[in-house]
Amino acid sequence: MPTHQYTGIDDLAIRTLKLLSVDQPSAANSGHPGAPLALAPAAHTLLKSIKINPKNPAWINRDRFVLSNGHACALLYSMLHLVGYDYTIDDLKHFRQLNSKCPGHPESHLPGIDVTTGPLGQGVADAVGLAIAQANFAATYNKPGYTLSDSHTFVFAGDGCMEEGISSEASSLAGHLGLGNLIMIYDNNSISIDGPTKLSYTDDILKRYESYGWEVIDLNDNADDPNALLYAIHQGMKSTKKPTFIRLTTVIGVGSLLAGTAAVHGSPLKPDDLKQLKKHLGFDPEQSFVVPQEVYDFYRKTVTQPGIEANEKWDKLYAEYQKKFPEEGKEVARRLNYELPSNWDSYLPKYTPADKALATRKLSEGVLEHIHAALPELMGGSADLTPSNLTRWQGAVDFEEPSSGLGNYKGRYIRYGIREHAMGAIMNGIAAFGANYKPYGGTFLNFVSYAAGSVRLAALSGHPVIWVATHDSIGLGEDGPTHQPIETLAHFRAMPNIDVWRPADGNEVSAAYKVAIDHRHTPSILALSRQNLPQLEGSCPIKAQKGAYVLQDVSKPDIILIGTGSEVSLVVAAAKVLADKGIKVRVVSLPSTDAFDRQSLDYKLSVLPDGVPIMSVEVLSTFGWQRYAHQAFGINRFGVSAKQSDAYKFFDFVPEGVSSRAEKTIAFYKGKEVLSPVHDAF
Amino acid sequence: MPTHQYTGIDDLAIRTLKLLSVDQPSAANSGHPGAPLALAPAAHTLLKSIKINPKNPAWINRDRFVLSNGHACALLYSMLHLVGYDYTIDDLKHFRQLNSKCPGHPESHLPGIDVTTGPLGQGVADAVGLAIAQANFAATYNKPGYTLSDSHTFVFAGDGCMEEGISSEASSLAGHLGLGNLIMIYDNNSISIDGPTKLSYTDDILKRYESYGWEVIDLNDNADDPNALLYAIHQGMKSTKKPTFIRLTTVIGVGSLLAGTAAVHGSPLKPDDLKQLKKHLGFDPEQSFVVPQEVYDFYRKTVTQPGIEANEKWDKLYAEYQKKFPEEGKEVARRLNYELPSNWDSYLPKYTPADKALATRKLSEGVLEHIHAALPELMGGSADLTPSNLTRWQGAVDFEEPSSGLGNYKGRYIRYGIREHAMGAIMNGIAAFGANYKPYGGTFLNFVSYAAGSVRLAALSGHPVIWVATHDSIGLGEDGPTHQPIETLAHFRAMPNIDVWRPADGNEVSAAYKVAIDHRHTPSILALSRQNLPQLEGSCPIKAQKGAYVLQDVSKPDIILIGTGSEVSLVVAAAKVLADKGIKVRVVSLPSTDAFDRQSLDYKLSVLPDGVPIMSVEVLSTFGWQRYAHQAFGINRFGVSAKQSDAYKFFDFVPEGVSSRAEKTIAFYKGKEVLSPVHDAF
Repeated sequence: MPTHQYTGIDDLAIRTLKLLSVDQPSAANSGHPGAPLALAPAAHTLLKSIKINPKNPAWINRDRFVLSNGHACALLYSMLHLVGYDYTIDDLKHFRQLNSKCPGHPESHLPGIDVTTGPLGQGVADAVGLAIAQANFAATYNKPGYTLSDSHTFVFAGDGCMEEGISSEASSLAGHLGLGNLIMIYDNNSISIDGPTKLSYTDDILKRYESYGWEVIDLNDNADDPNALLYAIHQGMKSTKKPTFIRLTTVIGVGSLLAGTAAVHGSPLKPDDLKQLKKHLGFDPEQSFVVPQEVYDFYRKTVTQPGIEANEKWDKLYAEYQKKFPEEGKEVARRLNYELPSNWDSYLPKYTPADKALATRKLSEGVLEHIHAALPELMGGSADLTPSNLTRWQGAVDFEEPSSGLGNYKGRYIRYGIREHAMGAIMNGIAAFGANYKPYGGTFLNFVSYAAGSVRLAALSGHPVIWVATHDSIGLGEDGPTHQPIETLAHFRAMPNIDVWRPADGNEVSAAYKVAIDHRHTPSILALSRQNLPQLEGSCPIKAQKGAYVLQDVSKPDIILIGTGSEVSLVVAAAKVLADKGIKVRVVSLPSTDAFDRQSLDYKLSVLPDGVPIMSVEVLSTFGWQRYAHQAFGINRFGVSAKQSDAYKFFDFVPEGVSSRAEKTIAFYKGKEVLSPVHDAF
Repeated sequence: MPTHQYTGIDDLAIRTLKLLSVDQPSAANSGHPGAPLALAPAAHTLLKSIKINPKNPAWINRDRFVLSNGHACALLYSMLHLVGYDYTIDDLKHFRQLNSKCPGHPESHLPGIDVTTGPLGQGVADAVGLAIAQANFAATYNKPGYTLSDSHTFVFAGDGCMEEGISSEASSLAGHLGLGNLIMIYDNNSISIDGPTKLSYTDDILKRYESYGWEVIDLNDNADDPNALLYAIHQGMKSTKKPTFIRLTTVIGVGSLLAGTAAVHGSPLKPDDLKQLKKHLGFDPEQSFVVPQEVYDFYRKTVTQPGIEANEKWDKLYAEYQKKFPEEGKEVARRLNYELPSNWDSYLPKYTPADKALATRKLSEGVLEHIHAALPELMGGSADLTPSNLTRWQGAVDFEEPSSGLGNYKGRYIRYGIREHAMGAIMNGIAAFGANYKPYGGTFLNFVSYAAGSVRLAALSGHPVIWVATHDSIGLGEDGPTHQPIETLAHFRAMPNIDVWRPADGNEVSAAYKVAIDHRHTPSILALSRQNLPQLEGSCPIKAQKGAYVLQDVSKPDIILIGTGSEVSLVVAAAKVLADKGIKVRVVSLPSTDAFDRQSLDYKLSVLPDGVPIMSVEVLSTFGWQRYAHQAFGINRFGVSAKQSDAYKFFDFVPEGVSSRAEKTIAFYKGKEVLSPVHDAF
């Protein structure tokens, strides 16, 4: 056991971590010094255990580190700087400033930051995703004598992370899956923003993690004895069938005059306090951002250099692997380069109007059936709605702890349980692992909202995850308003960097998957129908990728009707009613406002030109449709429990309900100058 | 102990509950027979213990019952029918049909349904809210010898509820708060939609609930022995300092040929299966919806009549209370009538431009300081951001278990911990208790999204809860994009029946509270700034209640600029820049699109008339603004970690950034016919 390895230089390194971590918030006059002071010994101990190559942050077999209590990021930046990632002292000095490399919370586009954290609890669930991906990657590609992947995922998490429900969901699943490669260090400082955590949180946390099936180690009062933690970490690294939970009892802001209080959590130390702390740490109280050369040397010797060497050793192994296993080697190389198989999209199904009507969720299942073999990076699942979401291809193997008898780690289908929020963050973690993982997860569209926190982080971090969001409207029928989305798509259409798709038929489902899987840095939500929809005349998997296109046209239309998803066939029917009255209708299918927004103004105007009134038709909130249409027919109340056809009739979503509103729209704009709503003045 | 009270009539009643509960889905050809079959004995046992008056569903001292596994609602409707609530057999026959009293999941506007459930886990947290409200109401108004309130809250919850993070959050808080009045019966049927729960869920659930501090009773294999459950329920009812968790191991769909499988969860029984079940239950397999008269008689005698009598007894006690404690009596009467004190709004602060600049979160604190004494129904809290949300008035008492030394049950301030989703549902439960409770809860606006599931149910159920959502934009500064909302208000503006407010100054904060607290059936979200904002010339607490109004006007404006919240003062500054160039600007403050949408077309056109181009200015997604403005200046990407002023500059939200876009807007619409966007063609 690696005990008693600590010497004076360890102590100096820890003190240096503390110093850099309090200097950053002081320089910014903003930030969180408390947790970094408490966690510096743990951070140092982690660095003694972790396998990373600061010169190659993307190395696939590095250990991952998630700072789930992301507000402690000054500590993370200090660590990254000291071990030689591309962070200068000057970068640290610009903590929390515009365009800084050291923003207010860790952002995963920066070197050495595995996932974006800050919103509490997310990191815990991200880490479960990282651990799942590692287990899957190892099970898929490791060969006897050729261990391409054996990395661990380490997490620091605070009291807030433990209180958030997402960490409960994710920890329960991690215990179930027996993820021995996951080690969480819980910073139990018993202080949160309101004061002592005992105001609201008195869980027996050790018992709670035992109940999830974790290996639990309690380091009561040993926060400043790194030996005990080092021993515990190594215990955790040896665990094979259980994730490890290490509870560290710490004092927030230790060394500050405000130690142990909420006052040291989220504000820089006062100048006097900072001075006394530096003095106490053995540094010149008048100087800032000082790093003794021996600390740099020590970390170079004990972390950076061994990491570089481990990476070089791995490179050799990988080169040999390529020779010995050319087929797998080619696949691994492709995945590490984030390249899709060149022909993957040739497997996407195409449809003609002669093909039978099917629910778009069923058509989504068809896509998965056709593409899964070509895309080993596709890793799916459902939050316990598999037979409803239709997310599991025939013969899929479940991702399960091998001795469970339920599957194995090579399995690519994850039984998430009824845990939408954790599913979202776990998908983010799987994508963040690298190796081109394309995670998808199913639930009802209405319950994607349970996961809004992690959907947002997917968009912010640019994880190309795919939400298979079925039962996308009142069309789900009898389950009623508690399950019928109204506002959900407006929410995600308004969110930056995420594509919302609501395909109308098989060709559009294929288009949505094509764009979603091609994305490297954008997540997608596919809103899919429960009910059957016809294969449309004019639908086109190529045109649909532009987000909107003319499905059926006439010369000199009196009106343009836009439909999405299940309402496109309704609009086609309404156009026929109107045609019988001599009213000419252009029908536009608009499966994705996000993809359409990316098109040129010329293209937008070719679909939605000046001079013609435009009306949108969608059984959801009309909020946001005025960007594309002059008038919007939608539902601005909650739905009803009724048969699908009755629900549609109740809201007048029948051909005559559409056509009568179209006529009123034409009448309203008659004689008025009609400008396309797609114009921007600036 | 009330053991061995079961006789043949109990058995017949249970069989009748089962029959009615399978007949409903069969009649609808849609629904969930599995859980009702398993839970019918528990439901019957609950009816033996519960204190309700079916003839007065609003009786304040009734016990509450939450069916958290809301999909089992056929059982609930059967119970409500049998004990005499206003549900006929014909209502049951219209299960899941349009306009039915028996919708696909329980909806709280219907008689005898305490909270809307279906989205899993919500009911558990609602129940915690109901229990909190009861404890607070009792502590506030009970007097020695005059126990106005001593009711219990019972919950049925399923495996899915246990898996959802919201139930973990709420259960942890309930244990902390020592809510002895809360009794949860966990239907552990070990089946979910994907199959056996062991595919994803292997928690030691008893240990988990012990870790939360609950009293745990395991009724392994005793699902069909109601005596054991009856005993456990009575144990739970005697518990004073701990909520009670009773685990019932059941067989889903017991009696069906598909018993114990996922196939019996969400689809009606097949005709043959239904017949054999009825035969097995001792009923005519050819008949449906049959209730033996002795079952009606039995429930009338053992549930309905005792309930009516208990209510009558309470009415007498209440009448005496009124005499003995006229002051409290008047207050209770007012609250039970859902009347606000007539003068409550006179305490709302008013401001003039001479008053100093303050953050709207600080102004919100001022409102709470001024109104809390007048409104005993106001019960607030924060998800561990009290010093940031400024949600606690001076001298507030925390709602805590009295022996904790941290507060008492009369306390009106709840330390929710970092549990936004549970906070949302607990607020719903507090409101659902009745007695005019007006719960409010604080968090950062960005993290209201963590609670989207419960916000939605507040809107759907019409609970008048108030979210105090501070740090409402990039204006929060250094915490960066993980904390800066962009899409959040679009989401909630698109949601039916919820008011979003983004007030610009003190008068508008008062206006927002005025409308929010006056609401009886609509929740509100107050989006409040972290940064200081000036008290505006022209701001008006009366006009602001209309959602939008002309703040500063000119004759024949060249453009109308709309601002919200922190951007109104920016628009005022931009208007000055434009005035210097001879460009005339009407400035409109639009704190609430929802309140504005409720106004007449005439009023809307008086604010946003035809003939003038309109541009909106808000540091959030522009999605949805085209309903009110021809051009929208906003932020359609994620934010930045930087000082507030730097962040605003980065996105060009400075007077010149606004004025230059205003000029482009004027130029673009020059010579074009400009129609106000508020017109509806149908």
